[in-house]
Amino acid sequence: MATATGPLLGLKVLDLSIIVAGGTASSLLADFGAEVVKVERPVSGDPLRYWGPFKSSQSPGETGGIERTSIWWKVHSRNKKSVTLDLNRPEGQRLLRGLARKADLLIEGFRPGTLEEWGLGPTDLHRVNPGLVIVRFSGFGQTGPYKDRAGFGTIAECMSGYIGMTGFPDSPPVLPPIPLADEVAGVFGAMAGMMALYHRDVLAEPLPDPFSMEYSEYAAAVVKPRVKRGQVIDVSLFEPLFRLCIPHITMFDLLGIVRERVGNDFPDAAPRNLYLTGDGRWLGLSATSQSTWESLARAMGLPELLKDARFRNNAARLENREALNQVLQKWIGQRSVNEVMEQLVPSGGVVAPVYTSADIVADPHYQVRQDIIEIEDSELGHTRMLGVVPKFSDTPGSVEHTGPRLGEHNYEVYRSWLGYSEEDIDELVRHGVI
Amino acid sequence: MATATGPLLGLKVLDLSIIVAGGTASSLLADFGAEVVKVERPVSGDPLRYWGPFKSSQSPGETGGIERTSIWWKVHSRNKKSVTLDLNRPEGQRLLRGLARKADLLIEGFRPGTLEEWGLGPTDLHRVNPGLVIVRFSGFGQTGPYKDRAGFGTIAECMSGYIGMTGFPDSPPVLPPIPLADEVAGVFGAMAGMMALYHRDVLAEPLPDPFSMEYSEYAAAVVKPRVKRGQVIDVSLFEPLFRLCIPHITMFDLLGIVRERVGNDFPDAAPRNLYLTGDGRWLGLSATSQSTWESLARAMGLPELLKDARFRNNAARLENREALNQVLQKWIGQRSVNEVMEQLVPSGGVVAPVYTSADIVADPHYQVRQDIIEIEDSELGHTRMLGVVPKFSDTPGSVEHTGPRLGEHNYEVYRSWLGYSEEDIDELVRHGVI
Repeated sequence: MATATGPLLGLKVLDLSIIVAGGTASSLLADFGAEVVKVERPVSGDPLRYWGPFKSSQSPGETGGIERTSIWWKVHSRNKKSVTLDLNRPEGQRLLRGLARKADLLIEGFRPGTLEEWGLGPTDLHRVNPGLVIVRFSGFGQTGPYKDRAGFGTIAECMSGYIGMTGFPDSPPVLPPIPLADEVAGVFGAMAGMMALYHRDVLAEPLPDPFSMEYSEYAAAVVKPRVKRGQVIDVSLFEPLFRLCIPHITMFDLLGIVRERVGNDFPDAAPRNLYLTGDGRWLGLSATSQSTWESLARAMGLPELLKDARFRNNAARLENREALNQVLQKWIGQRSVNEVMEQLVPSGGVVAPVYTSADIVADPHYQVRQDIIEIEDSELGHTRMLGVVPKFSDTPGSVEHTGPRLGEHNYEVYRSWLGYSEEDIDELVRHGVI
Repeated sequence: MATATGPLLGLKVLDLSIIVAGGTASSLLADFGAEVVKVERPVSGDPLRYWGPFKSSQSPGETGGIERTSIWWKVHSRNKKSVTLDLNRPEGQRLLRGLARKADLLIEGFRPGTLEEWGLGPTDLHRVNPGLVIVRFSGFGQTGPYKDRAGFGTIAECMSGYIGMTGFPDSPPVLPPIPLADEVAGVFGAMAGMMALYHRDVLAEPLPDPFSMEYSEYAAAVVKPRVKRGQVIDVSLFEPLFRLCIPHITMFDLLGIVRERVGNDFPDAAPRNLYLTGDGRWLGLSATSQSTWESLARAMGLPELLKDARFRNNAARLENREALNQVLQKWIGQRSVNEVMEQLVPSGGVVAPVYTSADIVADPHYQVRQDIIEIEDSELGHTRMLGVVPKFSDTPGSVEHTGPRLGEHNYEVYRSWLGYSEEDIDELVRHGVI
């Protein structure tokens, strides 16, 4: 792999969370060069290691059994280091405090109160490292009447308001095909962690203005040791997705509007829908501004639509949406997906086929954008994987390795972070602490 | 409003983008205290101002016409300042360079190449402010064969792979009910912008170790002016959502799996679905780990399910998913949503009703978490709106005001950022530059 540095090179992150949300935050930070140490339970590790589907391979060595490797784990934990640590044991808790002393950011996803029971709550952690930024993931947040409820992403999606609006009026609401609430929460967590670090290191105590004082006074002020204070960020799974449902609370409050399922039309503009091509592909089409609508009609070779009173402006198109959808479906249904794309795209038509993974891998734009990278892995062999998003001009980030084996970095991390000797570490293993 | 400071107080952001993606990034930064100046076209302003639904009100003054205020605009542009500026005119471009000189971060969303045509590309902007971080939003990114195509969120969603997996096998794929691709791109943009700022101000040129040199040498090194370099971040609309489809490219590459629509079941674990209660409400339920499944069966008063070979472990439950869904639907369908919640939640059942905006506003958890705030607005009157997400312990952020009137902050910003006098500004208005 090319070793392109990421913007976060040098930042140290401890990730105590399991499954998806916290891991999304740490995955994004790791893509951009942060040193992310994933702290896992000894023996079993993160439950994500047991999520299917699996790649099966002959295990190395003489026994030659079959090993199953989780694709989810290998992608989601790329660029991270794995150490094992039993947080239920006092020796494990002491070790964690040692690691926390060296870290900039700690991510956790236990039920609210669990860290505190272990003597590892924010107060305890700030005693050893006042500058530690702590990002806490949980189903319902650290406060409020539901905080002790079990909460998975599905529940958060239902409660956020997002699901009630997704799907067709005559069929059930539709859940997302990915752990959407967890992942959106993860991105919010990474963003919020960066904000808190920026606040801690740059904005909290601004440097004095050098022109406002004598040079010696300024130099003294600048070199004065500052206690950097890290804060605690409470990220629930339901609130980030709720935050993306931007206007609905206010629409309800002021106008009494309760948005329900409206299928693939857009409630406030037309046309916007999916249409089926002659060769059986779904195609997204959006022409919700007057100019895109007019250029669409011309590109379709149907300029008469522009004189049709039913479609003359957005209000008319909304009123006659069904007729409009029929016109578009008829035209698109008579052509293959390639014919539609070739006829509409050059004149500015806003259309795209609904892609599968196979389409994505074959698409030249994805290739040129380096959205799909290739990597060699001891467990998976040679494989492709999604690349780094978004694209930084100077420090693009990189994928250095896929998800590590359980405890793969015990020696490296306990030695370099805590100064332990090989014997110390073997001793911890023998006692089941790591 | 209480003036709780956000972590980003003092950070200056210029937002040149229109509609949703860039505005999501700047909205999140503004919620946490960044000074966000939205640069809008004179006279018409951001197209989001014309997105329905609208609150109608009597306009002030003697003419007493009816004013329509966009709910989308008022929520999405909260906490931001509005200045007008015609970027097509040389005087407008000069003014923008002046503003950019003072900013930390610039957000834009024009078609690739547009800023450059105006003499406002990254090279031009870095000439006046080498430290400016520039976040560029576009449908397909700044490079690659599709970069000049028109791209809205719908198209990005189709191309990301997300839509092809959303919905039921026997009905069309389902589009999201919110501008999901734009908004996810916005959160990625805010995160990436913070990473680039942190890199610029903290990590790019680390301070020397004070113990490695003499005090005077250290003091000199520390106060030496450093040129801070801002970089350019290229955020497309299709890649962030693609990035959240974590394992699918690798699943396809290694195992040939092409994930298609599977409805509301989860492909790798059961039960996870929506069920209809006796009083006609949809309810999300997830019991995908063995322990949540066992406690669910007991909480339902159906311990015999645990002895049923069809449901004894996840593999069996997956194989007999239809029978399992029938058992659960039957039990839930005989009870009201409240009865189900009351019986299942106390014993750890992972269930929640599908909420509408009306449910959210009535929910005590949302209230306690301050997810819904109240605010007084000159155009909307007294209204409710979603709060600040996520929750910071020390610098929680706040909502100070709703979306501004067009050019509301011309005097304030041109005066305080550029030192213009009231007469200078009036002159710019007269010439239609602002």
